[in-house]
Amino acid sequence: MSILNFLLGRPLASDEESEQRIGAAAGIPVFGLDALGSAAYGPEAALTALLPLGAAGIAYAVPLSLGVVVLLGIVYFSYRQTIAAYPTGGGSYTVARQNLGARAGLLAGAALTIDYLLNVAVGISTGVGALISAVPSLQTQTLPLCLGLLAVLTVINLRGVRETGTLFMIPTYLFVACLLSVIAIGIAKTVMGGGHPTPVVAPPKVAAAGGAASIWLLLRAFASGCTAMTGVEAVSNGVQAFREPVVKVAQRTLTVIIAILMALLTGIAYLVRVYRIGATEPGRGGYESLLSQLTGAVAGKGAFYYVTIGSILLVLALSANTSFADFPRLCRAMAQNGYLPYGFAVRGRRLVYSYGVYVLAGLAALLLVIFGGVTDRLIPLFAIGAFLSFTMSQAGMVMHWKKHPGPRARTSLIVNAVGAVATGITALVVAIAKFTEGAWITLAIIPALVLLMVGIRRHYHAVTKEISSPSPLEFADLKRPIVVVPIEDWNRVSKKALRFALTLSDEVQALHIDSGAEPNTLQAAWADLVEEPARKAGQTVPRLVIIKSPYRVVVGPILSYLRQLERSRPERQVALVVSELVERRWYQYLLHNQRAQVLTALLMLDGDERIAVINVPWYMKF
Amino acid sequence: MSILNFLLGRPLASDEESEQRIGAAAGIPVFGLDALGSAAYGPEAALTALLPLGAAGIAYAVPLSLGVVVLLGIVYFSYRQTIAAYPTGGGSYTVARQNLGARAGLLAGAALTIDYLLNVAVGISTGVGALISAVPSLQTQTLPLCLGLLAVLTVINLRGVRETGTLFMIPTYLFVACLLSVIAIGIAKTVMGGGHPTPVVAPPKVAAAGGAASIWLLLRAFASGCTAMTGVEAVSNGVQAFREPVVKVAQRTLTVIIAILMALLTGIAYLVRVYRIGATEPGRGGYESLLSQLTGAVAGKGAFYYVTIGSILLVLALSANTSFADFPRLCRAMAQNGYLPYGFAVRGRRLVYSYGVYVLAGLAALLLVIFGGVTDRLIPLFAIGAFLSFTMSQAGMVMHWKKHPGPRARTSLIVNAVGAVATGITALVVAIAKFTEGAWITLAIIPALVLLMVGIRRHYHAVTKEISSPSPLEFADLKRPIVVVPIEDWNRVSKKALRFALTLSDEVQALHIDSGAEPNTLQAAWADLVEEPARKAGQTVPRLVIIKSPYRVVVGPILSYLRQLERSRPERQVALVVSELVERRWYQYLLHNQRAQVLTALLMLDGDERIAVINVPWYMKF
Repeated sequence: MSILNFLLGRPLASDEESEQRIGAAAGIPVFGLDALGSAAYGPEAALTALLPLGAAGIAYAVPLSLGVVVLLGIVYFSYRQTIAAYPTGGGSYTVARQNLGARAGLLAGAALTIDYLLNVAVGISTGVGALISAVPSLQTQTLPLCLGLLAVLTVINLRGVRETGTLFMIPTYLFVACLLSVIAIGIAKTVMGGGHPTPVVAPPKVAAAGGAASIWLLLRAFASGCTAMTGVEAVSNGVQAFREPVVKVAQRTLTVIIAILMALLTGIAYLVRVYRIGATEPGRGGYESLLSQLTGAVAGKGAFYYVTIGSILLVLALSANTSFADFPRLCRAMAQNGYLPYGFAVRGRRLVYSYGVYVLAGLAALLLVIFGGVTDRLIPLFAIGAFLSFTMSQAGMVMHWKKHPGPRARTSLIVNAVGAVATGITALVVAIAKFTEGAWITLAIIPALVLLMVGIRRHYHAVTKEISSPSPLEFADLKRPIVVVPIEDWNRVSKKALRFALTLSDEVQALHIDSGAEPNTLQAAWADLVEEPARKAGQTVPRLVIIKSPYRVVVGPILSYLRQLERSRPERQVALVVSELVERRWYQYLLHNQRAQVLTALLMLDGDERIAVINVPWYMKF
Repeated sequence: MSILNFLLGRPLASDEESEQRIGAAAGIPVFGLDALGSAAYGPEAALTALLPLGAAGIAYAVPLSLGVVVLLGIVYFSYRQTIAAYPTGGGSYTVARQNLGARAGLLAGAALTIDYLLNVAVGISTGVGALISAVPSLQTQTLPLCLGLLAVLTVINLRGVRETGTLFMIPTYLFVACLLSVIAIGIAKTVMGGGHPTPVVAPPKVAAAGGAASIWLLLRAFASGCTAMTGVEAVSNGVQAFREPVVKVAQRTLTVIIAILMALLTGIAYLVRVYRIGATEPGRGGYESLLSQLTGAVAGKGAFYYVTIGSILLVLALSANTSFADFPRLCRAMAQNGYLPYGFAVRGRRLVYSYGVYVLAGLAALLLVIFGGVTDRLIPLFAIGAFLSFTMSQAGMVMHWKKHPGPRARTSLIVNAVGAVATGITALVVAIAKFTEGAWITLAIIPALVLLMVGIRRHYHAVTKEISSPSPLEFADLKRPIVVVPIEDWNRVSKKALRFALTLSDEVQALHIDSGAEPNTLQAAWADLVEEPARKAGQTVPRLVIIKSPYRVVVGPILSYLRQLERSRPERQVALVVSELVERRWYQYLLHNQRAQVLTALLMLDGDERIAVINVPWYMKF
């Protein structure tokens, strides 16, 4: 146990829960890494979609980004209200379930589940991919590096939310500080340069010529830019992780995250335009990420550049952590409603919903192994889940305001309705634009997951219905069972089993299977060994039943004897006493037959209500 | 079960054993394939060792082969006597054990075990290798072909010795007929050609010049030629597979095998000299096997040539079968003396010692997988085991004749002593000549295996000593156990468990672990649900024990409660009733906790003599 303590920390008692809660400072790294990290790829994704327009495309950067910022504001407003309305957490799943019905809740839950899972695999593989661009000799170690990073994240998250927050504060705040500095310096230089600053390192030239802008192209660019919004729902799912006053602290955390994100998005869009920076074709020679171009143009490629780029890579790799914080909580909420196995709702040794962490880590590892650590092909599958759940959550809030009219309910309703329509359209655009690239897989898996969860709940209901019974215990008709003891040889083990059987019942049968391999001496000796002493002690005499087994099998005849006994004596229960030689060391296992275990397993698998199995262990002394 | 019947045939009853026994005609393919197949490589191995002598080396072919034939005669004589002296089978192991002591027997047994295992891997891979030389496009499928052939041999041998014999008769007798025809035609042509026949297809020219013959070179050539003797001990191991009169039939089988082998070895050596055929360098361009050269020279490369070569390849591939016939019998003999797990001595459904077949197939598959189906590097490991066991067997027979003086004992003793010295020298020469090529591995594994088997026997002895007890059953002091029933909720399952507990004892305790997750309603309801009805029925009242679990674990507190109960009540046994929800379908397994199984397993692993576990199953209806 000491290695577990070292890895995961000492177990936490249930009443230590409140000490494990976190404030806004730790909440930002725990729940904000995904959202903040997306500032690194959202604007670039939009500009990449604008590439066909050439230099003219850059002009759309500011309006598109403002659009995203406005949508972000709407979503922020919605989730802020959600936190207040559902202080026990649950986010989109809970909101949709409460306001739109169970199926809608499941749809949002399934979409988010897939979003979180993909986020882990893609986040880790992006981070490792960036590390490999820097140190190409690590190329062959891609998968081990990915799995190693996954293992580290898993262990850190199993240690509890407080330690995760403390540990990830430094990279998160370094990232925020660097990017805000870039933006501040850039704006200062722009002002001093009269709106036309001179880049320190000139960005690659953007092709001047280009096609005309179509609505569809702009929509796609907008949808791509909206990937900057993934991860925004995280805080609302994890409200219960915050310290008192829960709602206030969670809202403050969300506010800070969204404020930083908005500042980053606006700042980046503005500087992109004044420095005339365009996206470069990804996967082609001469590719350079947007933030690398921007940082170089603003501050040159010195030490500050490398610190900034390093912090971006770290945050991308750690953005998987948001899933680790939220996936288990989402699963717990669904498990409490019976849609997932109960284990998801049980707190582990560090008060974390460990089962969810294991399942997330296992599935992500599977994805990483299948794709060899390079998950580019998973990226198109990714944003749909997030936007589907945004839409469900917004629509749910619309219904919420309808049911709870109040002074500001009407305004709120309108904002949420606008948000629902906007995120819904975005989800639709993403689904259509990325359909053939693999988004159809997500669209196929989500309903399958919903059906699975409905099936699980149906199963639990059926079990509960079958076994529930509020009536008191019946004391009538308590007859002692007929106890059968299979005996191979006469030795201490079989004698112990027989003696135990005799303490349980007045009707004990010893059962010997005679496969003809050795002369059967048991029958001749039975009178001396058992019958005579029993009579002397005034006890009922245990019977010896001998069954011939021409085909040398042992387990089969025992099972059929038990069934026959059960049929011929319907008034009594039957119990089988299995005397088991327990090996002290694993290799001893190979030296003895495991007939006791086989018997127990077969009786359990194919058994009968009325046959109980009694294991009487015999421990070897050495 | 019907697929098992199809694959392996219907189960055979113990009293059908005599019908499964075989005569000499079937015995030759079953036990002779290894020995006869070695005629295909023994002479070639000797001539390859003579390559440094150039054309002069061919002159040594006849004397060396005659030496091998004489040694073969001595070994034959020895094993013929062994069969008569030990009609229950056992070969070298039994002879050495009875006459030289247990350790010597183990040494012979371990050596043979390794010989048999290597024979399977090498035989199969040689056969598949030859097939691939003929059809090079199969190259990439080497390992699957090897494993497929292994699987076929395994299944055939699991069907029983009689079916194996019938099936392998055709290739065996075809092989013998072809090679004897080649020899007969060759001798006829030699006689007609006045001692100088003209080859139909001229063999490759042998380099005229060469070094001088040293004793060491000739010894090595002799040792290589002796590989023609591997497999000769097989019949003596399997005497019990033959029909009555067992000894006569087994001896007749051995006589036929050795006679054919001697004829082949002498004939090949003679024709090699008159046709002036030398070995070609293996693994080099222009390599052609000795028998291919010989058949071509004698009969040309027409249809007969291809049939002959085909039959040779088939016999090489099937020579693995001798191991399948003997390895399980050898293991059974050793298991009966306690040196191997008892399972090796148990007859399976077709009266075969199936455990030995499985273990042999499994280990051979492992070797094939490790070496990718190309086992050339295993060949040097191979002959030592055989010659070591020959030597032990001969030496054992020397002691046998000393103990059983008789009319011909003195002659027999001398013959066996000569045989022991000759095979001993051969073993030594092989070991030295092949030491650095890998023979050291065999020399290291054999003593390790002996130590393992001694350890196994010591374990069985200790167990027997610990549990054996011939005294009658004690009827004094039979007190009913204290029965503990862990209860999570009040439902049909827990009620069934409680009722069963009440039939077993007058002291029943219900144990509830309160992890604080849900409000504890059981305590309040206990009076109504249990205590009141118990009093009304005039029964002792089952107690409810509630244990708080601040760390949310359930199994640990149950275990420690049981131990504490056991300590405080030393006069009574303790029984734990585990009510288990048994899932009907595998996936339901994921939906329920397996606490009952964990409890059972932990109690068994780390348990105590005085705690029994009672499984009361609850089967779900759906």
